[in-house]
Amino acid sequence: MAITDIDRAAAEQLAAHCGIPNVARSSEEILADRTIEAVLICSSTNTHADLIVRAAQAGKHIFCEKPVDFDLAKVDSALAAVNNAGVKLQIGFNRRFDADFARARQSVTSGEIGKPHLLHIISRDPAPPPLSYIKVSGGIFLDMTIHDFDMARFLIGDEVEEVYTAATVLVDPEIGKLGDLDTSIITLRFRKGVIGTIDNSRKAAYGYDQRVEILGSDGAVATANCYPNQTVISTGSAIRRDLPFRFFMDRYTESFTNELRAFVQAVLEDRAAPVTGIDGRAALRLGLAARKSYDEHRPVQVQEIG
Amino acid sequence: MAITDIDRAAAEQLAAHCGIPNVARSSEEILADRTIEAVLICSSTNTHADLIVRAAQAGKHIFCEKPVDFDLAKVDSALAAVNNAGVKLQIGFNRRFDADFARARQSVTSGEIGKPHLLHIISRDPAPPPLSYIKVSGGIFLDMTIHDFDMARFLIGDEVEEVYTAATVLVDPEIGKLGDLDTSIITLRFRKGVIGTIDNSRKAAYGYDQRVEILGSDGAVATANCYPNQTVISTGSAIRRDLPFRFFMDRYTESFTNELRAFVQAVLEDRAAPVTGIDGRAALRLGLAARKSYDEHRPVQVQEIG
Amino acid sequence: MAITDIDRAAAEQLAAHCGIPNVARSSEEILADRTIEAVLICSSTNTHADLIVRAAQAGKHIFCEKPVDFDLAKVDSALAAVNNAGVKLQIGFNRRFDADFARARQSVTSGEIGKPHLLHIISRDPAPPPLSYIKVSGGIFLDMTIHDFDMARFLIGDEVEEVYTAATVLVDPEIGKLGDLDTSIITLRFRKGVIGTIDNSRKAAYGYDQRVEILGSDGAVATANCYPNQTVISTGSAIRRDLPFRFFMDRYTESFTNELRAFVQAVLEDRAAPVTGIDGRAALRLGLAARKSYDEHRPVQVQEIG
Amino acid sequence: MAITDIDRAAAEQLAAHCGIPNVARSSEEILADRTIEAVLICSSTNTHADLIVRAAQAGKHIFCEKPVDFDLAKVDSALAAVNNAGVKLQIGFNRRFDADFARARQSVTSGEIGKPHLLHIISRDPAPPPLSYIKVSGGIFLDMTIHDFDMARFLIGDEVEEVYTAATVLVDPEIGKLGDLDTSIITLRFRKGVIGTIDNSRKAAYGYDQRVEILGSDGAVATANCYPNQTVISTGSAIRRDLPFRFFMDRYTESFTNELRAFVQAVLEDRAAPVTGIDGRAALRLGLAARKSYDEHRPVQVQEIG
Repeated sequence: MAITDIDRAAAEQLAAHCGIPNVARSSEEILADRTIEAVLICSSTNTHADLIVRAAQAGKHIFCEKPVDFDLAKVDSALAAVNNAGVKLQIGFNRRFDADFARARQSVTSGEIGKPHLLHIISRDPAPPPLSYIKVSGGIFLDMTIHDFDMARFLIGDEVEEVYTAATVLVDPEIGKLGDLDTSIITLRFRKGVIGTIDNSRKAAYGYDQRVEILGSDGAVATANCYPNQTVISTGSAIRRDLPFRFFMDRYTESFTNELRAFVQAVLEDRAAPVTGIDGRAALRLGLAARKSYDEHRPVQVQEIG
Repeated sequence: MAITDIDRAAAEQLAAHCGIPNVARSSEEILADRTIEAVLICSSTNTHADLIVRAAQAGKHIFCEKPVDFDLAKVDSALAAVNNAGVKLQIGFNRRFDADFARARQSVTSGEIGKPHLLHIISRDPAPPPLSYIKVSGGIFLDMTIHDFDMARFLIGDEVEEVYTAATVLVDPEIGKLGDLDTSIITLRFRKGVIGTIDNSRKAAYGYDQRVEILGSDGAVATANCYPNQTVISTGSAIRRDLPFRFFMDRYTESFTNELRAFVQAVLEDRAAPVTGIDGRAALRLGLAARKSYDEHRPVQVQEIG
Repeated sequence: MAITDIDRAAAEQLAAHCGIPNVARSSEEILADRTIEAVLICSSTNTHADLIVRAAQAGKHIFCEKPVDFDLAKVDSALAAVNNAGVKLQIGFNRRFDADFARARQSVTSGEIGKPHLLHIISRDPAPPPLSYIKVSGGIFLDMTIHDFDMARFLIGDEVEEVYTAATVLVDPEIGKLGDLDTSIITLRFRKGVIGTIDNSRKAAYGYDQRVEILGSDGAVATANCYPNQTVISTGSAIRRDLPFRFFMDRYTESFTNELRAFVQAVLEDRAAPVTGIDGRAALRLGLAARKSYDEHRPVQVQEIG
Repeated sequence: MAITDIDRAAAEQLAAHCGIPNVARSSEEILADRTIEAVLICSSTNTHADLIVRAAQAGKHIFCEKPVDFDLAKVDSALAAVNNAGVKLQIGFNRRFDADFARARQSVTSGEIGKPHLLHIISRDPAPPPLSYIKVSGGIFLDMTIHDFDMARFLIGDEVEEVYTAATVLVDPEIGKLGDLDTSIITLRFRKGVIGTIDNSRKAAYGYDQRVEILGSDGAVATANCYPNQTVISTGSAIRRDLPFRFFMDRYTESFTNELRAFVQAVLEDRAAPVTGIDGRAALRLGLAARKSYDEHRPVQVQEIG
């Protein structure tokens, strides 16, 4: 674990509490350590590209949180460094490792539902993040939808070639004042003809709403939200259950474990990482296209970007 | 429609409102009418057996509401009259014609779940009837459970040979003062080995609770309650839906129509009635055995009855 | 019931079978009958506008199946005739009378889910109609989506001001050869800011898929498909239930009854019809806008139409 | 970790693989180690009572897998040793720590469903264990139902005073030849009047079936089975989902973690263990009473036992 000087005391306390044996004073210290084969980059987005380049040059395999960067040129430099070094790079699109989304993907690859025709992704946060976060988030499409763009590519197994964005500010006008949006539906058109939508909202009063549906030529698959319990209470006023998991740490716990296990396996068994820099780049491009579509109020070809 | 003098005016008004063209002044008038092939007996229980005998003697096919009578000897006389006259008798166990229970039965006859092993019937009213009704109801086992006894025989396709009753008064002590019970679990043992339970309560705050479950050697079948709509509301406090149908008129509407259609078809096509006097007698016997088990606090062989 | 000469014999047979006492030889005969207050127009679409005009001139209240016509000018003439005659006109948007969609609407009007933000309508047929029908259908947007346009307006209680259509042919290339589409997602933008989608497919292998979802500021509402039974079968290979209702006659039986009851009540009690010619016109306009958006590959303002 | 000499090599390999730093050669070695505060007894049932006594005498806090023993006198000796030593004893009734059952219990303690009236516990294994295991299992009531007896006491918060057992052999006749049963329904009567059932089968083709339902004066609570995913597949033949978790290691993973965390907390914070030797004794007594009821074919008062 590498820490910056500023919060070193706090980090050392935390590390001690969690039983983390070694705490480095800087990323340099880690990159210089020849006994370390692989690194996880979980710092703020603006540091990702540079850390990837340096880690690749140090010969480390790399797991990096999404997004790689908001700038396509910087992403390309980072991916080039990874390529040149011949190291593995896995991007933190953890949702691919979620049991439900993996099952939905399986229903496509197995032919269980035939050829996919229509896709819907619902991805809503329980409440907007602080405005201070919104400011540096890169905007809803790069911060939030980026996961859904990856999910769309993953589920259908095809590239999106056109996007159309209908978006607005309905949750909090302050978000609008920052130039961002909080409610949107993005229409996707894939190369092989599938049409889909991504529905995003910064506020779902009932909790974290994360679902996908695919209609295929022979059937359909639909995931449901995940709940802390499966218990139903029936009273004189309603048949009800408790709210679904409130946010991503609870909803996606297992997928976070699974993605790191997959990364470690890829390194140990010298196999390709299951989610690569190419995937990170593709999702970013879709995010940029979605914003362009909103700004220019027209469908945008993804090849117009980058 | 035959009416008694006492409520003749009211009945004639009702008949006019509903577009019923002919109203008879007495059951005699109906039974004497040679153009009438079949009659429906929906009067109070104490009049059933006598009306069956007279209708049979008049050569009418008969549909009679359950139970035939609370007394086994009177039931036997009525069935004998039916037999002698060679007319059809269908008993009003409408639940056999419910889409869900019919589907559960089908899962047994089709072999879909293998050979049945365990059965559960849940049958709960939303609220107890008036005490005045309880008094003349014949008690919970003959009034309420009688439907479930028929359902048990119908679903498994076998006779119950032993019952054990655990029952009590938890809903309303006034019911206990009348010598009746309001909460019970009856264990059934069928001839071919299936074990089952019937769960009855006079009060389910959330509405009419009518479900069955069967475990078989190769699987299980379970029905769910029926709702006026399939809509789910998600708010900051719960994921909920509206209550199920409140009582039998709403829950079983379709089955009432279906049972009469089946009776008419049996008459028109001269086929056996789908639910016969034998079924009515068997359910009554189980009700009497259940009460005996409660009174004597021991498992009772059904052959001890009648 | 009015019949054309060509199928008179067949119609008379049918009428006799169903117990319909009077069969007219022509619509003229009906319109000339002073004892008839109201008429139902259920003929082919190309005859609707003319029949409405003639019925209005004859002073009859009118129930007319959707759509009124494919041509906005003809619709306007028909509505003018209705206005001049002071008769009621109800359009056959039966889905407003479906228990689930009515409940979804109620969740908006009651404030239960707060102010609406996002809407999704899924409306898929089990299988495409014959090509001969497709040819005269007016195209998917006027034949199939027209119901969903009405549903969108009904659920949100606001007018759509912009549509964007992403559509294609994935079900049957023959449909494409006729110039029609079989798979589409239309994005709707309402005046007050709500964004929504309508998902249509001519083929859902599992049956008739008819659902809506609304996200509001304080919660969400979602309807589910309707099934002939609520029974779940569990075996060694899956937990499963039977398919939902196969098509509209089964799925919407109750709503068809309800819409006619509402029409009759409106006539008897001299109240406004619950779905008017204005609603028919608005849905048509949206259908025309959706096609224009597809043809011109851009978002279309509804005011560009008519 | 203590190991017997016989499988020492294997155990040491396993321990090394799992990163277990210390492996003791015998339980004596552990009990003699003054730095060890608490021990987990997970050996075969016949060794539990003796190990509890020795651990208590060594002053260790004890977590012991259920059942303590099949013999009430040996249990009493063990509990006496624990009492004398003043150490804590927690019994491995892990299901109390399952999120669903805990939620069901909460619905009772919170008053959410009013006062409990009726209880149903469904507890079915996916397939019978090997006959070699059946032989030493203590029989279905002490091996399998013992968990459900504890669950019944936990959910209702009251003691069972009478049981009635209806049981048979339907899954595998070989189980019957060993004098055991594989299919049973036990009726429970609690002191304060609640009536309940425990449904057990050694074979549910669809997987591990673990559910509870409670009807209370103001409502009901019901848990559902747990699934590896929440994904629904719709095809031309069925609407279906994958099977629930196959067996206890998957179904109850979280509860095993939770029970050990609770034990550790009880030790660290010097609080009462959440499931005690008293609970272990009570469940054993119910198992013995259930068998007696089966053998004597009559309801048995629990006070007849021990």
